[in-house]
Amino acid sequence: MLELTPEVLGILKGHTTVFSKYLSCYIHTLNKFIGFLRKVSSLRFERTALIKYVKKLRFINDSLTAYNFDAEFPDPNNTRLHEAVKPLASFLLKSIELLDLLNYFLTQPLQKEIISKTLNNELTLSEECIVAVEDTYNHFVKFAQWMIESLQIENAFFQIEVVQFTRKCAVEDGIDLENTDNIFLQEVVPVADTEEYEVIAEEWAHILDGKTLNLETKFNENVINWQNKFDKKKEDK
Amino acid sequence: MLELTPEVLGILKGHTTVFSKYLSCYIHTLNKFIGFLRKVSSLRFERTALIKYVKKLRFINDSLTAYNFDAEFPDPNNTRLHEAVKPLASFLLKSIELLDLLNYFLTQPLQKEIISKTLNNELTLSEECIVAVEDTYNHFVKFAQWMIESLQIENAFFQIEVVQFTRKCAVEDGIDLENTDNIFLQEVVPVADTEEYEVIAEEWAHILDGKTLNLETKFNENVINWQNKFDKKKEDK
Repeated sequence: MLELTPEVLGILKGHTTVFSKYLSCYIHTLNKFIGFLRKVSSLRFERTALIKYVKKLRFINDSLTAYNFDAEFPDPNNTRLHEAVKPLASFLLKSIELLDLLNYFLTQPLQKEIISKTLNNELTLSEECIVAVEDTYNHFVKFAQWMIESLQIENAFFQIEVVQFTRKCAVEDGIDLENTDNIFLQEVVPVADTEEYEVIAEEWAHILDGKTLNLETKFNENVINWQNKFDKKKEDK
Repeated sequence: MLELTPEVLGILKGHTTVFSKYLSCYIHTLNKFIGFLRKVSSLRFERTALIKYVKKLRFINDSLTAYNFDAEFPDPNNTRLHEAVKPLASFLLKSIELLDLLNYFLTQPLQKEIISKTLNNELTLSEECIVAVEDTYNHFVKFAQWMIESLQIENAFFQIEVVQFTRKCAVEDGIDLENTDNIFLQEVVPVADTEEYEVIAEEWAHILDGKTLNLETKFNENVINWQNKFDKKKEDK
């Protein structure tokens, strides 16, 4: 059984920081979007649906930043690593399933409804933005999968829908699991000791930080596009 | 620190059974609803949003019923009660936040969109059905709150949005917390021993079973209404 260390506790705190940044990207962008939607009465019900999502993300983000690792694990050197990882992993899984619902709504039915109701794509998300949403999500999912499987703490409550679904399809399609590009199918190797966990966990923090930064850029570009279109409409009047 | 017993483990299994029934009510009703929506092309995007929710609920339900209490806690008499309750409570909280998003979408924007697009209420939910959805949800939330607070295992990761929000509003509005009808504001008293936990946990299973049965009845009445309206339309043609 691996032990926690103050170093790993510091890295777990770092993971909550990057996850909080990820959530904040959405909160910021959706707030802007909800502001623009105020002027489009045909999309008023979609707007209320988005407000509900933003409130939920804000709640999730507040809970995440309020979690006190030092109070929960006052004596890291005498704590088992998986005891410290489980509550965070479980919370991230909750957030991931909520984000899955939001991402789907935002990038699929909402995009089609916007085009159907406004007959233009002034308020849609750019293709690059949708790619960034999916790519970032997939990496956070893989990270959560790594957190759990590298410590072999998996059970039915630690499953992730998209991973389970991908595996099920792969088995049905007879895909070679040892030779696949799909990140959800690539096997997570259990870590041998706390030092190995520390090294890989730090690498993950770095990867996720980069992905989040890219998502933020794409979201910001989209916000500027929306703004320009609204400003242009005002000038045209 | 309270100990688990085989009796309490049995009651926890009972809680998963009633929660699974609750989820199954939604899955069954929404599947029927999605079937009716196939014929209403103006609601095709709402239909895909509902399909996404049903898939998520099915995944949640499958995880819940696959969880193996006996494998997780092979020696109940030498397990601390809160260690057995935490994973289930955490999983229920995830489900509760997902249901909150679904309930909102189903009972608010979707209802308004249906009326706005079809210009009638043939496909809406009845008022009694919406009341049952909210009442059942509130009781499951209160139950989850009881699970956590009766054992004083609360921390930032065990918060529930609606409870936190209700408390915040109550403080701002200066509501007397010792004298309120709002179930979320009524204080949960920590249990003194495992026997007390057992008695109250059984009462909860009984209450939730009744609430779920009522919800099922209201949902079924609604499905019959939808069916009658579709059959009538066919006859009219």
